[in-house]
Amino acid sequence: MFGILACQQLILASPEPSESMARKGYRVVAEFSIHPIGEGTSVSRYIRRALTELKKAEGLRLQVTPMATVIEAEELSDILSAVETAHESLFSMGAKRVDFILRVDDRRDKERRMEDKVRAVA
Amino acid sequence: MFGILACQQLILASPEPSESMARKGYRVVAEFSIHPIGEGTSVSRYIRRALTELKKAEGLRLQVTPMATVIEAEELSDILSAVETAHESLFSMGAKRVDFILRVDDRRDKERRMEDKVRAVA
Amino acid sequence: MFGILACQQLILASPEPSESMARKGYRVVAEFSIHPIGEGTSVSRYIRRALTELKKAEGLRLQVTPMATVIEAEELSDILSAVETAHESLFSMGAKRVDFILRVDDRRDKERRMEDKVRAVA
Amino acid sequence: MFGILACQQLILASPEPSESMARKGYRVVAEFSIHPIGEGTSVSRYIRRALTELKKAEGLRLQVTPMATVIEAEELSDILSAVETAHESLFSMGAKRVDFILRVDDRRDKERRMEDKVRAVA
Repeated sequence: MFGILACQQLILASPEPSESMARKGYRVVAEFSIHPIGEGTSVSRYIRRALTELKKAEGLRLQVTPMATVIEAEELSDILSAVETAHESLFSMGAKRVDFILRVDDRRDKERRMEDKVRAVA
Repeated sequence: MFGILACQQLILASPEPSESMARKGYRVVAEFSIHPIGEGTSVSRYIRRALTELKKAEGLRLQVTPMATVIEAEELSDILSAVETAHESLFSMGAKRVDFILRVDDRRDKERRMEDKVRAVA
Repeated sequence: MFGILACQQLILASPEPSESMARKGYRVVAEFSIHPIGEGTSVSRYIRRALTELKKAEGLRLQVTPMATVIEAEELSDILSAVETAHESLFSMGAKRVDFILRVDDRRDKERRMEDKVRAVA
Repeated sequence: MFGILACQQLILASPEPSESMARKGYRVVAEFSIHPIGEGTSVSRYIRRALTELKKAEGLRLQVTPMATVIEAEELSDILSAVETAHESLFSMGAKRVDFILRVDDRRDKERRMEDKVRAVA
């Protein structure tokens, strides 16, 4: 077994919310996966649209993985609000049934960002 | 908004199962997240152990994300078998309650690997 | 193989929002599962608290299952708002790390309530 | 807010595996949700088929909820094996892409069955 590097784009709100990090010290990390049901087997244009909406939201850090989008924010409400907008955008594209999964990991005893979670287990 | 690159280790079985790709043309992509309940708020040593077990399994490709491990395999049974071993390993470390989530995306009308799923939406 | 009946309490907002059903014809069905990490293996008092918060929310219909709580509402925002409150309540009990999963199924081409989904497959 | 009773069929393997309960004292509880992507918005015939396969499996106790099927078994391997068969059955019906989620809760410090989990939080 050997390893190679897979580079992926990590999308950041600009400017980096470094002051807010200093203030609270912890951030919520979540994972979001969405797709329409009944719009064919290829659903990537719907996922691109959901991503576009997530990128428009203020203060989110995003990482796209093969199965979901990881979202980091200062507050859960920022994530929920962005998810709601992304969800609604699929209906505006014509989808009649949309399913999503949101998993949230909110830890308040320790400072960390999404990269720290990978580092801790690598 | 701007982007930076986040490099993560993609772990491969050696040698690359390129012949099997040629044979079937599609592969199962899944996502696995596991943790003990009741062993403190820091569970990274348990996740490292689960990852160690996944890496031992034959024919899997793995990518660790902040919220889960993405697994690609030729057959669902290879994934289920590795997940079962990883799950059991947490009890052998002393955990008394273990929860996991496995999400599977099995597409058989199109050749693709885990990287293709990210490319399609980026 | 044979079947027995398992009776479970379905919790309703009072009065039943029958007019709103007539108005829109569809309702969002979701599933919510939450637990603290690091507060012991028995987490039922935390889940009871989350349920108490969900029951306080206006316009939700709830069904508790062995693995989650099914939530039906007229609007996704009602579900997200209740979930956010339930999530926060676990920290107010002293939890330092809280994980939840929310799965949403939003179908707008057909009238249905949570019971219809079970009937369709039984 | 008031409550009504929702009766649902709990499906049991026959005969009840009561001896095995006595032997080990704990059982794995899981939740399984499956659907094809790209076969229209109505997917209940696929879910019925998956349920048929789960019911054929030895030693499982099942409860259908509006968002998933709860599965209880003596061993995780029994659940994984049944899930694999159910998954494959959707392809045999013509589905070209199938997604599923399996959530497992395996607790070994306390005797319990799926009903106990509901009772503990009701």
